[in-house]
This record gives sequence, structure tokens and C-alpha cells, in this order.
Amino acid sequence: MEAKDFTRREFLKISGLGAASLTFLGILGCDSTKQRLAPNIIIIFCDDLGFGDLGAFGHPTIYTPNLDKMAVQGQRWNSFYVAASVCTPSRAALITGRYPIRSGMCSDERRVLFPDSTGGIPETEVTLAQALKKVGYATACIGKWHLGHLPPYLPTEHGFDYYYGIPYSNDMDYVGGANAFEKLRYNPKTEYWNVPLMRNKEVIERPADQNTITKRYTNQAVKFIKQNKNKPFFIYFPHSMVHTPLFASDEFDGTSRRGLFGDVMAEVDWSVGTIIKTLEEENLADNTLVIFSSDNGPWLSMLQAGGSAGLLRMGKGTTWEGGMREPTIFYWPGRIKPGKVMDMGSTLDLFPTVCALTGADVPGDRIMDGYDLSPVLFHGQTSPRKTMIYYRGEQVYAARKGSFKAHYITQGAYNMGGERTEHEIPLLFNLDHDPSEKYNIADQHPEVIKEISQIVEEHKKTVKPVEDQLEKRNQ
Amino acid sequence: MEAKDFTRREFLKISGLGAASLTFLGILGCDSTKQRLAPNIIIIFCDDLGFGDLGAFGHPTIYTPNLDKMAVQGQRWNSFYVAASVCTPSRAALITGRYPIRSGMCSDERRVLFPDSTGGIPETEVTLAQALKKVGYATACIGKWHLGHLPPYLPTEHGFDYYYGIPYSNDMDYVGGANAFEKLRYNPKTEYWNVPLMRNKEVIERPADQNTITKRYTNQAVKFIKQNKNKPFFIYFPHSMVHTPLFASDEFDGTSRRGLFGDVMAEVDWSVGTIIKTLEEENLADNTLVIFSSDNGPWLSMLQAGGSAGLLRMGKGTTWEGGMREPTIFYWPGRIKPGKVMDMGSTLDLFPTVCALTGADVPGDRIMDGYDLSPVLFHGQTSPRKTMIYYRGEQVYAARKGSFKAHYITQGAYNMGGERTEHEIPLLFNLDHDPSEKYNIADQHPEVIKEISQIVEEHKKTVKPVEDQLEKRNQ
Repeated sequence: MEAKDFTRREFLKISGLGAASLTFLGILGCDSTKQRLAPNIIIIFCDDLGFGDLGAFGHPTIYTPNLDKMAVQGQRWNSFYVAASVCTPSRAALITGRYPIRSGMCSDERRVLFPDSTGGIPETEVTLAQALKKVGYATACIGKWHLGHLPPYLPTEHGFDYYYGIPYSNDMDYVGGANAFEKLRYNPKTEYWNVPLMRNKEVIERPADQNTITKRYTNQAVKFIKQNKNKPFFIYFPHSMVHTPLFASDEFDGTSRRGLFGDVMAEVDWSVGTIIKTLEEENLADNTLVIFSSDNGPWLSMLQAGGSAGLLRMGKGTTWEGGMREPTIFYWPGRIKPGKVMDMGSTLDLFPTVCALTGADVPGDRIMDGYDLSPVLFHGQTSPRKTMIYYRGEQVYAARKGSFKAHYITQGAYNMGGERTEHEIPLLFNLDHDPSEKYNIADQHPEVIKEISQIVEEHKKTVKPVEDQLEKRNQ
Repeated sequence: MEAKDFTRREFLKISGLGAASLTFLGILGCDSTKQRLAPNIIIIFCDDLGFGDLGAFGHPTIYTPNLDKMAVQGQRWNSFYVAASVCTPSRAALITGRYPIRSGMCSDERRVLFPDSTGGIPETEVTLAQALKKVGYATACIGKWHLGHLPPYLPTEHGFDYYYGIPYSNDMDYVGGANAFEKLRYNPKTEYWNVPLMRNKEVIERPADQNTITKRYTNQAVKFIKQNKNKPFFIYFPHSMVHTPLFASDEFDGTSRRGLFGDVMAEVDWSVGTIIKTLEEENLADNTLVIFSSDNGPWLSMLQAGGSAGLLRMGKGTTWEGGMREPTIFYWPGRIKPGKVMDMGSTLDLFPTVCALTGADVPGDRIMDGYDLSPVLFHGQTSPRKTMIYYRGEQVYAARKGSFKAHYITQGAYNMGGERTEHEIPLLFNLDHDPSEKYNIADQHPEVIKEISQIVEEHKKTVKPVEDQLEKRNQ
């Protein structure tokens, strides 16, 4: 059954606020100074957070009161995708608004950048930060960049005025001796990972003290907000957590029911709450769009140190839903229509959506893969996104059109074995009926497979060969 | 790690209302007539609803705006258990406040009552309705009784002034010819099941038209509320849905993204919303406790016609969490402290909780297995329930103490095969860290297994042999 339009519209009525009253609140609530400014944009991006890891998305023992409140007062998106199921290509997609195959930021062999990598985001790419800078935004990247740690690739070379963070995954630069995998899962100590903490282009601490990393990132974000409160700003805030090794500061360590993962998630939630509180205190809340999501699904081979995809299948590294569908919240009090959105969205859509809101230009000289989600966010309309392509490395493994998803190739979770299998007849699932991808209905809908396959073929025609950035390394 | 008390307390702060302001609202908001009355009690009990099947509990495409709102404005319980994973014993536990082993309402062979059964709830049992009737309550049971359909066992013989409903499962009395299981799963027609619809002790329709059953149950409940608005009332409202065969009325059929299951669930949600609206219109909302839960987890062998346990393992019929942990909401505007509760509760606790609220007597001449949950509901304190015994039929399969659950015997989902396995060393899971029961940690905590085993032994000593009601049948 095709999804009915009214369902999502009805959802949006939960708050009891219609479009008219929302507009009214919007006008009434705005500080007159800020009213004239373009809205501030904050993208908070977790690492390895599963679809089932927030209270609002059903986790029974993870404590996320700030995010849960935002999910009720804002829009909770139930079918929001990243464009790759591992760090580097997922982040490249968000920041460029393009499938990473177009920028060379994905690869079949080395799926992400490593400390010995010499590649990174090409200078020919236009980042969202660059687009916003052109229209007067102050821009900061705080957290895990992972789009190249050598000088040409750092955030400050790609549109960000300021960078503070660990430039790649927090489990790299391992110096902890034997049993690396065990140390990643159990009782991690910050000195086992000799990762750098950078400010702009300088290493300011090594190894970075990860025990306080969430707190320090948050302080940096708060400072940037306060410093830039009189002009529009963009903060891209990719947390290093909840990627293993997990670290929480003293205030959170040992406080949650979910164990260390829960402690760390509670601190991330605290961080989100601190950002919101700062916006409120600075009278910026009604002129700031806050978006929360994560780069990919839970790292299942981390066992209890990894997250949960809830009812979705598999996790990080795979093109099953658990790898690429993320718990996503859009929050902007007085502007965004509260509710639950079942329509599709993607991190690919953030670039055009933010440009539409801010008056920034979407590059016109290249293929962009996103859609402006404003009709959903502000007007309760259906999402312009009707399809999604699921890449693993450079290959299309699956594609979704409406409620149907066809798998051409399947493979198990990252670091969990799982044979690569090419399907002569693709597996077909109705994700609306069967979000857990349990019941293959390929034999009932050959016409749907044909339609999706045509979409994939059309997409592939648009992909031009580019230099593979992830295979470049020190010899 | 043992759960920290502050976590749940912190959760309760989400609403921003402290205990003092809640009390104040309670006094201020009450109609002076009703203020003098004991509170009304409504227990809405779904059938075969999974832990993951409500929007508020994380389902991406099921549409439950009324329940979602109640979950935010009331208390959402994340660790609330039924005392059996199939219909009859689960319902016996709720209505008597005792593990069904004490009433003879569970059995290893015939796990529930069937149309040829001659047993039912013994007259020696005291039901919650009987307890409430003694203190002046008007009482009604509307829906699926399933505690005996012969005259001595019907609701009106056990404390209910009024009964309206299908007295057992809606898939019984099958007369649909070949392929019974297929007809249960796909395109069910109401005439395939010759189930009776009863009013008090009379059959008023057969086969019951199940297409309109949710709507008619709801109308009955609304009527009962209106008729009894000037005295305290108790409505026990066990829906026939979402047990297969699934039926939705014309207004809901074909309207949801989740297919027929979603349509039916949307109608159940509409029903809940209609009850709440009626309470509001009759000025009873601030003097009525509404509880929502389900009798057991999803019937997984129904495939897409069955529900989802979300991140929990297995479903109906099993003693894995998916079989016995239910999405539960307590709602009483102005009285219940809004929040998410991670502590344990059980349908066994409803009897003493309701008695504490209403001044009714808990029977003093027998073992009761419940706890008064008032400290959690009204005062943000920890739950008095620290343990739970998981029965399958007459046998203890598992037990929980705090965050730890030990499995002595495991077996797969109902009608899904799955070998019965006795574990010489019990499986041990930390449900707070690992709600999906993936990581057996028995070897790390022998002392916990010992403690839980002692609890089980103490419990078993309290169980006296009684007549097995479920094996009694026409010869």
C-alpha cells in the first residue's frame, strides 16, 4: 500500500498548533534585532549512534531528556538517511550535499581516512560552510572532521573560520599494546589512543584527553555562539562520541543504567541541552535551526560498548536500514511544526535546505543530490525526497523508492563477518510495513524492482570518475 | 552497574513540574463534586501489541498520536511486565494480582482457554472488580475476557456489573475452510471466525462482526462513562485487537503506512483518544487514572500481520523480553508526574495500586504478588518492584532481580519452533546494559545467579497445587 499523505499531515497536528498560529508565534517571539538576521544553523552530528539509542526513539534505559524534549517540540524524522554507513563518506555527503562517489570520498578498500592517509576533501568541492560564508556567516567546525587531516583538507581550508577537534576517529593512532579490540570495548584509557586535538591547523594536545572531550567541544560551541551572537553563524558540531573508545567526564561516568555507553550518551544529551540553553539565554533560540543526527548506525561488533539500531536490521558499515537510517531531530521553536515525519529525508538534503533558509547559493555547476526540506519543516507538506541510493564504498548495494527498498548486494555488519552476496533477483522489502527488513516480497512486485533498477541506472549515468581520495596514503 | 536512583528521578523532571506544583494543580483543577469521589480507573489492554509498536516507543510508521501524547504527559514505563506471555494467564494475573500459577489459570499443555474449555477463573479468586465493587464502584468489562466463557466464569459473575465483548480470542471458532493460517495472516474476513459477541451472559451476535469491533467496544465504554459519571467507576477494557485476524473499520482501513496492522493500531489509538476526550467533556479527566498496556508481546509467526518487540528479543509465547515486556502508559493529568520510568512494574501491581488509590481492600487471606506503585506514579520515588518471575505455563523459565535476568529454560517464539533448552548454568543478561539479551555474562556474575536462584526457590515454596483450569474440556 502506498503511503497516504494524510498520515504525516495528521502527525503534524499533535501539537495542536496550526500553520497560522505558528507563524504568529514566530513573529511575536522574535527579538527585533535578530529578526532581521538570517537564521543561525547548528548541525549536531553524533558518531555511531543507532536508530534505537535515544529515549524518544524507544530506548528503555538511555537517558536523553533534552533530545527527547526537542523530539516532541520539534520534528522527529523516522526515515532519515545518511549517504554512507561509515564515517568519512557519510560526512563528505553532509558537507557537500552530494553522494560521496562524486567527490572521491568513498572507496571499496579503505572505507575511511586513516592517520596515514594523504587524501581528503578536494578543493573543487563546495562545502556548506563555504556557501554560508559567502552570505556573511561566521562558521565553525567543532569536533570530528574526518575529511582529511593534512593542511589542505582541514576545515579552515574549506569554509570554516574556526576549527577545534580531533580530526579523525578517536580509535585511531592506537598505542595501547596488545588486545587493541578488547581495550576498545572494555575500560578504555585515553592514553591508548594518541589522537591529536587541533585548533585550526595546529595540534594543541596529543594524546587528546578524551575524558573531557565532549565537555570541551561543548564549551567551544558555547563560546562561538556568544562571540557571534550579533551576526548569523553556522556551527557544524560532529561529536567524537559515541564512537568507541567511549569516554565520559566525571560528572557522567557511572551515572546511567545503560553502562558506559549510556553515560556517554547522557553527556552528549547534556551537551545538546547546553547549546539550547545558551541559545535561549542569548535570545537566539527563535532564530536558530538546530539539527541532530548521526553519521551511521551502531558499531555492533563493539558489543555492549556499541549502540542499538532498535527494530532496524544490522548496523554500521552495512546498507541494511540499521546502517544508514539515523534518529534525526529538527528543532526551531516557533518555526518548525512539531510532529513525527515518516517521509524520507537525508543528510544530502541539509545543504539545499540550509541554502533555501539563508539565501546562500547552491552550486549550479555540478550535480547536487539533495532536496530542500522546507515544505516539510515549515508547511507540513510531503517530502520532496522520494528515493535514496545506498552505497557501500563505490558500489550501489541497494535503493529505495517510496516504501520499497531493493537490495542488489547484501553484506553483514562492519567487522562482523557476513558474506557479500550478489542477488540475481534483488531482495525487496516494504519498509513501511516491514521496517526490520524481514520479509522479502520480490516475487510479488517485479514491476517495483524494475522501476527501482531504472532509477539506479539513471543515477549511475550521472556518476563521473574522480580521483579516489581514500586510497591515497604514505608509502 | 546497579541502576542509580537519580536517573529515574531526573527523568521525572522533564516536564519541569515539581511535586509541589503538581499537587497544587491537582487541587485547583478538580471539579468540586468529583473531588469528593474516589478516582475512576480505566485499564485499556491491547492484545499481542509489541514493545516497539507505538510511536512513542520508537515505531517509525505506526500512527498513535493520542498514545504518544499520553506518553509525554503521563508516565511511560519502559520495563513493565505481564506475568505470562499468552492471553489467558496474562489476563488472570492482571485481574487477580497473582501469578496465574496460584489460580490454576496457566498450563504447560493448553496454554490458553479454547472454545471447548470448561474451566475458567475460580470463584475462590478475588478480582479487582470485586474489590472495587465493595467500595461502591460501578464496574464494566468491555472486550476480550478470556478467563472462561461458560456461565460461572463470565465477568458478571466476577465483580463486573456489565460485560460486552468477544469472550475469547478472535481467531477461535474457525470455520473458514482450508489454509487457516494464511487466512489469519492475509486478507481476513470476519465470517471465517464464528466467535460470539456477548452482552452480560447472552450471545447477541455470531459471528461477531469484527470489522466494527473496536468502534463498538469504544462506544460501549463511552456510554458506560456517561452513565456512571456521578459515581466512581472501573472500566477494564481489553481490546480484541491487535490479535490476528486484524480488522479495522472503514474509516481506518487502508489509511496507515504500516499496512493493516497500522490501520488497526490507528483505530485503537483513536479509541484511546475517544475515551480521553469523553473524560474531558464529562469533566472527569482530573479524577481518572487511565492505564494502557498489552497482554503479551507480538505474535511473530503472523509475519507482517504481527507486531514488533522493537529492540527486545523474540515475542509472544516466550520468556524473552519481547514476550513479556509491554509498552505501558499511566495517565492522569495533574496527578501523575510526567516522565519515563526505567524501574520495573507489572500488571501484577495494578491490583494493589488501584486499591491504595481507591480505599478498596487487598485480600488479606492469600498471597498477592503485586506492589503499590503509587510512590513512582505520584512521588517520583523508586519502584517497590525489584524482582519478576517469568513463567511459561506452570514452569519458571527465568527471573529478574534489579538489572539482571537469569534464564533457566529458554524456548523460541510461539508457533515459531525453537527448541526448549534447559541451561545447567543459567544464561545471565544485564537488561539495563543489554535490553536485547545478546550478551550472556553468566561467567562474570556467579553470585548474581545464586541470588536470583534463591529468589526463585523462595517463590516456588509459596506456590500450592491447585486445579488446572486450562486442561478442563468437553470430552
